[in-house]
Amino acid sequence: MQLKLAKTASEIKASAVREILKLTQHDDVISFAGGLPAEEFFPAGDLQKAFERVFQQGNKVLQYGLTEGHPPLRDDIRQRLIKKDINVNVEDVLLTTGSQQAIDLLAKVYLEPGDVVLTENPTYLAALQAFKYYSVNIVAVESDSQGMIPEDLLAKIKQYQPKLAYVTPTFANPTGIVWSEERRLALLDACAHHDVLILEDDPYGDIKFHQDETYPSLFTLGKQAGFHGVIYTSTFSKTVVPALRIGWVCGHRQIVQAMTRAKQATDLHSSSIDQQALHSLINHFDLDGHIQNIAAEYRRRMQHMMRLLAALPSHQVHFVEPKGGMFLWLELPAEIDADVLLQSAVKAGVAFVPGTEFYAGNPRRNTLRLNFSHTNAQRMTVGMNRLNDAITSFLKSDAVI
Amino acid sequence: MQLKLAKTASEIKASAVREILKLTQHDDVISFAGGLPAEEFFPAGDLQKAFERVFQQGNKVLQYGLTEGHPPLRDDIRQRLIKKDINVNVEDVLLTTGSQQAIDLLAKVYLEPGDVVLTENPTYLAALQAFKYYSVNIVAVESDSQGMIPEDLLAKIKQYQPKLAYVTPTFANPTGIVWSEERRLALLDACAHHDVLILEDDPYGDIKFHQDETYPSLFTLGKQAGFHGVIYTSTFSKTVVPALRIGWVCGHRQIVQAMTRAKQATDLHSSSIDQQALHSLINHFDLDGHIQNIAAEYRRRMQHMMRLLAALPSHQVHFVEPKGGMFLWLELPAEIDADVLLQSAVKAGVAFVPGTEFYAGNPRRNTLRLNFSHTNAQRMTVGMNRLNDAITSFLKSDAVI
Repeated sequence: MQLKLAKTASEIKASAVREILKLTQHDDVISFAGGLPAEEFFPAGDLQKAFERVFQQGNKVLQYGLTEGHPPLRDDIRQRLIKKDINVNVEDVLLTTGSQQAIDLLAKVYLEPGDVVLTENPTYLAALQAFKYYSVNIVAVESDSQGMIPEDLLAKIKQYQPKLAYVTPTFANPTGIVWSEERRLALLDACAHHDVLILEDDPYGDIKFHQDETYPSLFTLGKQAGFHGVIYTSTFSKTVVPALRIGWVCGHRQIVQAMTRAKQATDLHSSSIDQQALHSLINHFDLDGHIQNIAAEYRRRMQHMMRLLAALPSHQVHFVEPKGGMFLWLELPAEIDADVLLQSAVKAGVAFVPGTEFYAGNPRRNTLRLNFSHTNAQRMTVGMNRLNDAITSFLKSDAVI
Repeated sequence: MQLKLAKTASEIKASAVREILKLTQHDDVISFAGGLPAEEFFPAGDLQKAFERVFQQGNKVLQYGLTEGHPPLRDDIRQRLIKKDINVNVEDVLLTTGSQQAIDLLAKVYLEPGDVVLTENPTYLAALQAFKYYSVNIVAVESDSQGMIPEDLLAKIKQYQPKLAYVTPTFANPTGIVWSEERRLALLDACAHHDVLILEDDPYGDIKFHQDETYPSLFTLGKQAGFHGVIYTSTFSKTVVPALRIGWVCGHRQIVQAMTRAKQATDLHSSSIDQQALHSLINHFDLDGHIQNIAAEYRRRMQHMMRLLAALPSHQVHFVEPKGGMFLWLELPAEIDADVLLQSAVKAGVAFVPGTEFYAGNPRRNTLRLNFSHTNAQRMTVGMNRLNDAITSFLKSDAVI
């Protein structure tokens, strides 16, 4: 049998970095690679009780559900979004298998082969992967610590006539940055004038380190300006637990309905027992208090990581202090290629994700992403010392560019 | 904002039938429409205990999982498949969100726009929907109660050079038929000679009414003949519960690995807590005994439905007695259009799926699908009487063709 994989699928190989990182999934490697929340804070006991309550409702809870998702959970989400100034109808909320599926479904219903998608540079690597399956052209817009740079954005809109802009404006993955309001408005203005749909990916927005600061969503700012072309997606993977794989997407009804039909053809619906359990949890548990607790803990871990980085003056690493989220983006001395560094780092017992993975355009090879949420202070100290050793040996070696 | 949905998505509308059937989801309509297993036999108590055991293992069970799925469950599946003479390595088993996702992922990695997919006629309607998103041409092969008709199959292979054949050879949806071994071998032979990949969809194979009969899988017959181009998919939705949405796909490593990479880009992974609970259930529960029990009950319900059909001689309905599965396929007198009949049937308090939904080629408009697994004998009697009344009124009305 001669196999003939589709062109896109045959071009997408297992990433070399991913293969290396597979080797790091045992306890003797301290990994800052995965985008993992801290297990020790999972509300496991409360979630278990939530499942028990669902089972008490009788066998019907185990039947097929709606493609749109469990209606009471969709209404919980609608209510929670009001606190963020995001006002949607429950009909315009679709539950997905993580927010990753929202990216895939939007691509499925909105993009044709050859269409152009604008992204930040760097951006979330699995969004790049999702888009690649639709044979679109991904064009990276130059970005700094405030967001996409408007001049480059406008130039690229004019040059490429993109159909979609994919952005993570609040505590971005991988950079951890927050877009300024000015840059948010500039993006909205440019997209409104050129009919570019925006996908606002907000998995980390709730994990904020300064409770008094607010970061208005593109969705809300757009609505205020009369622009309804922002599709908003988020997830409970970082705030409750990842295992349930419950994300959601909301926005323009025509788009969300098209995504719902596509989801029906894709997997009928996501786990409905998990959706019912999450609904029960939300209504018997102080989720907002829980989120504040984990945000406070992640902030302490981030501060600990920054102190450890500051103690390594010889390496002249640069980073922008994150205001939330789970990642710290490191710029190493220009002569270090983080892809090469990873190999010696793993041998030294520490792992990270090299920056190259996150670039659609020309990568800056001396960058890397560190996750600070998953590792406690004690292990973090050991891990960062190993990273220091790896960088020090690397700088003395032949591998320096 | 001017929206520009992708061509495929804009062509796929909500089905009119589906909209009618939405009206039937309250208790005063007796629905034979949905492909629903009987709730009263769900192993809810055992599943609840399985969840409890998983939670007892600590918080780690709630972390992100592998795209491939929970390894012990993949191994359970491997072991269970041996009993069906299907021998695969655990590495070649991918867990999916229902077998629906297996269809979607295979299309994603194997089909290009314009490629031809062969299907039975009629066939599973949600497979047709899944394929449509990939802009492929679906070509229906003439089929009878033994499977695809070899002459038409060969003619269509020569005419269209298809890349994939999608079939449900055991207790097909919607027709309930079982392919004869001769037809299975004929399909394998034709596909082997013309490099056509086969997707064998087997959601109902375990729900068999004659325990002594065996129906060899295309996968196994193919392997015996040296043909490795059969991808096999099935699900626990009918044998355990649908809410978990746990299906799987296995077969040629290169294809399964490509599907795994595509799944990573699509949704990272399916609910891992559900996968762990199912693994625990399988190892603490007599699943095979349970499957025999529900198959016996579904057989009784099918027999009851057949008796009710036989009591309506005036309507001259035809059907082939199913040897398993959940559906009975009805051929009405030629002058009845089942799409039109549905509207009066719903008013009379009974629902079904008109046959037109299942045809990729020219539909036979006087056909319909009845589900017999979900409705107990008492309600079934009431529902079938209503259907009888609806048909009788219909034949007297102007709606007759």
